[in-house]
Parts: sequence; structure tokens; C-alpha cells
Amino acid sequence: MSTGPTARPDLARLSINQETIKQWSLPELAEGCAAAGIGAVGLWRAPVQEYGVEAAAKLMRDHGLTVTSLCRGGFLTAPDDAGRAEALADNRTAIDEAATLGTDTLVLVSGGLPPGDKDLVAARERIADALAVLAPYARERGVRLAIEPLHPMYAADRCVVSTLGQALDLAERFPAEEVGVVVDTYHLWWDDLAPAQIVRAGAGGRIHSFQVADWITPLPAGVLLGRGQLGDGSIDLRDFREQVDRTGFDGHVEVEIFNEALWARDGAEVLTEVAERFRAHVL
Amino acid sequence: MSTGPTARPDLARLSINQETIKQWSLPELAEGCAAAGIGAVGLWRAPVQEYGVEAAAKLMRDHGLTVTSLCRGGFLTAPDDAGRAEALADNRTAIDEAATLGTDTLVLVSGGLPPGDKDLVAARERIADALAVLAPYARERGVRLAIEPLHPMYAADRCVVSTLGQALDLAERFPAEEVGVVVDTYHLWWDDLAPAQIVRAGAGGRIHSFQVADWITPLPAGVLLGRGQLGDGSIDLRDFREQVDRTGFDGHVEVEIFNEALWARDGAEVLTEVAERFRAHVL
Repeated sequence: MSTGPTARPDLARLSINQETIKQWSLPELAEGCAAAGIGAVGLWRAPVQEYGVEAAAKLMRDHGLTVTSLCRGGFLTAPDDAGRAEALADNRTAIDEAATLGTDTLVLVSGGLPPGDKDLVAARERIADALAVLAPYARERGVRLAIEPLHPMYAADRCVVSTLGQALDLAERFPAEEVGVVVDTYHLWWDDLAPAQIVRAGAGGRIHSFQVADWITPLPAGVLLGRGQLGDGSIDLRDFREQVDRTGFDGHVEVEIFNEALWARDGAEVLTEVAERFRAHVL
Repeated sequence: MSTGPTARPDLARLSINQETIKQWSLPELAEGCAAAGIGAVGLWRAPVQEYGVEAAAKLMRDHGLTVTSLCRGGFLTAPDDAGRAEALADNRTAIDEAATLGTDTLVLVSGGLPPGDKDLVAARERIADALAVLAPYARERGVRLAIEPLHPMYAADRCVVSTLGQALDLAERFPAEEVGVVVDTYHLWWDDLAPAQIVRAGAGGRIHSFQVADWITPLPAGVLLGRGQLGDGSIDLRDFREQVDRTGFDGHVEVEIFNEALWARDGAEVLTEVAERFRAHVL
């Protein structure tokens, strides 16, 4: 783990995923994090592309910020040749962008079921097929692919990989330097098998990203923007962090919260609150 | 499996959970099912209580209807003595109601996390403690308790039992005649471990209820009323039914769909459609 020169020791492991403070532009994010003594960020492709990938890379370097991950590649479940070729091309671009940004981790949201399709097993196999093409390409560029298991409520329309066990079943077909997993508390907290799978992931050197958000209810329509601020929900975040750390993981903990109420507030205020909650509930 | 005298052979395994046609009163349900050649229904406590439990039992008998299950007991995760005593008393009442209705199966929705609580493991243990009290009471009255694993999106606020594996871990602490499980496609379809757990449940004689609904997106706010009509979604319902049947199960298949669009339509029209979809997608 490398931290920027301005990072506060108590926040040395904190990485702010930019979607958590979506109201901020990339320069606001870079300046805000640097001013707050936070040395790492997670970025998303669309705002990076809009700003310019090279320019975004320079912006982060100039502020001493480590880019812990780029979100996201994936959507690899298209059944037809054209859809598959398009997805592979887009993922190669995402890998190039990650390399330019200097991050070693591209997060993959694997994709849901095609319309009318009911075969989860076959969809997961198509992901493996695509990884076999993409993993060497990524490795040549110093980028690791990180399969993110998404909560089972996204299995149909977003990601057929729903558990850490499933993600590891896919990842372990490849070397750990090429394909690993994302451990995200929001997606995994309910699973009584997750602790054993965290051990498995850590032992294999496959925890490429560790993300935290809390679980709050009621869920909003579409269930995308209902993630909770750290400490507001049902997840024992510290216990999760300790489980991950016990495997030998000492990397960044990326705070990734999609929550419209947070987006409606002043960005600097949200950042201060996230840092406080991080100390209170994660460290 | 017993079927009413009027049951159509092709619908002999079909049971209509009354929440699927919530717009119907109990007499409308009884008359509608009997007229359509459907011999079985699943009932809910609130409408049965409103109608009168004895009267509802007579109504079903008079129409030759088998009551395949009563929904629902459960909510057994209260951490305090008063909350626990209240839950046990309510579940004893539910067991009595099931016995009066002549159904052998009380469905349990186990309960979520108490406010401020983050300990899923302890909550699941409290369910086991409550089952130890309730199971003998139920057995004396000819009623089996059926733990329903609910989709993980309900783990915080409704049911900390999220997978068939977890449900069986709880159920197997008791004799199969006392405690079993509900296999519901809506809750389990995403889980790659479900097929093995269905085999486990069947081998142990613990499939006390088999329910079907389809998975459609986007999910509505609160994620309670977004179940899909059979065939409208992502679940291979026939494959599920065949998996369950291969264990030796030959009981009713209960259609339980919570969907406001279905509730807004004419009840008889919905029943006809459910029967058609049942033949097309489940049998």
C-alpha cells in the first residue's frame, strides 16, 4: 500500500470511491481528499472519460493520490458473437484506462441474464470464457481483474455472480495476479458462508479490492441507490474488516456508497462524515 | 397428496396461495377455485382470522379444498424476554389456527435483526431456541413448522434465514416431522448451492412446502410486491419443479405471487392465467 504524502496516519487505509461524493467533479475530489489528508480514491470510467483519462491520471498524481480501483469493466454475458465482441473491446479499453490511471485493479460487474434467458450456469460460463481472453491482456498492462459478487437481488439484470464463493470459483481458473475478487460488505453481509470464503480469497491472494457500505432499509425502487452511510445500517463493518485483515490483507478500504441523500449534501461535509464514520465503525 | 373431488387432473398439483388473488374474499377464493377445478389453496392468517378460523375451515371443507399451508408464523428474533414471550404466544395461536384449518404446514418467516443489532449469527440462534419450544407444541397438533428462507434482500428487516442451506441447518436440529423448510423459487433461484440443498432437503423428508413465483425487474420500492407471474421472469420454474420432484416430492406446488398488477385485475381472470402459466412453465 502506498499513500500520498499528505495522508493522515489514521486515514492511511481510507480510499474514497468517487461515487460516494458524486456531486464533486474530479478536481474537487482530488483537492478535497488531499486537503482532508486522504491519500486514495476509487474512480469510475464515465467521469474519467469525460475529464480525459490522461488528464485525470495527472490530476491524481499531482495531488499525491493513489487510485485504488477503476469501476468498472464486465457485462460479459452476451450470448451472441457481436455482443461478446463489443464487450471484449470495451473491457480492453477499460484495462487501458486503468493502466493509464496507474491503478492495478479493474472492478468487474459481470453482467446479468440476457432477455428471455433463464440459464445462470451458462451465463457464468460465458464470463469465464471472456476472462480467458481479457486476463492476459490485463496482465501485460499491470492490471488485475477483480470480479465483484453483487448482492443476489441483482442476479437477473446486473450480475449473475452473487456470492464470494461463486466469484472465487471463476477467479481460481486463472492466476491470482490476473483475476481476483472484490470483497464488498454491502453485497456479502447476509451470507453465512462469506467468512470462510474471505479466508479462501485471502489465502489465494485474491482480495484485489475491499469495499465498504452499510445496509439500510427500506430499499428504494430499482434497489441501486439505497446504500447506507457507514454505521447507519445492519452490517458489522469492523468485524468484516478484521476478517479481511486476518488473511494478511493490509490494503486500502474503499468507501463506496450510492445514496441520493449523501449526493444532495455539501461534498466536503460528506467527506468529513465518511472519515469520522470510517474511524468509528471500520478501523 | 389429497385433492378435492372436483380437481382437474392437469391441475391436481396446483395450489393457489390466497395472496396471489388478494382481491378475492375467502368465499370468492373457495368458489373460484372449486369452479376452476383447482383442489388446493394456501391461506394467510389475517384474512382467515377476519373471516373466523372455524368458519374458514368449514368453507374450505365444503368446497373440497385442501389447505396446503398457513402463512405465517415466525418473527422469532426478539432479543428481550417480553418480545420473545409475545412471539411464542403468537406462534402457538398460529399453530392452533393451522390445526383448525386442517393444514399440516405452518410457514415460518423467521424475523429480521432487531433495531441496532448487527449479529446475524445470534439472531439465527434465537430462532433455534424458539423452535425448540414450538416444535413439540406443533407436533402434538399435527402441524409441521416450515422454515422459509427468504431472499437475502430481506435479511435485515424480515428474515435472517437467507438460503436453503441455512434453513436446513436450523431444521435439522429437530425431527423432520416437526421442522422442515419451504422451497420457494423466488427466494432461491440465484443460488448455485440450492440444487444440492434441495437434494439434502428431500432426502431428509423436509420439503414441507414448495412455492413458485417468477423473478422480474425492476424491483419496486420496499421490494415486497414485485414478484412475477409464472413465465414472466428469469427463473427456470420447470427445472426447479423437476429438481424437487427428483427427491421424491409429489405434493402440491403452491403459487404465491405478490404483485399489485395482478391484484388490480379480475380475480377469475387471474386464476385462469395462473393455471395456464402453471401448465406452460411449471408442469
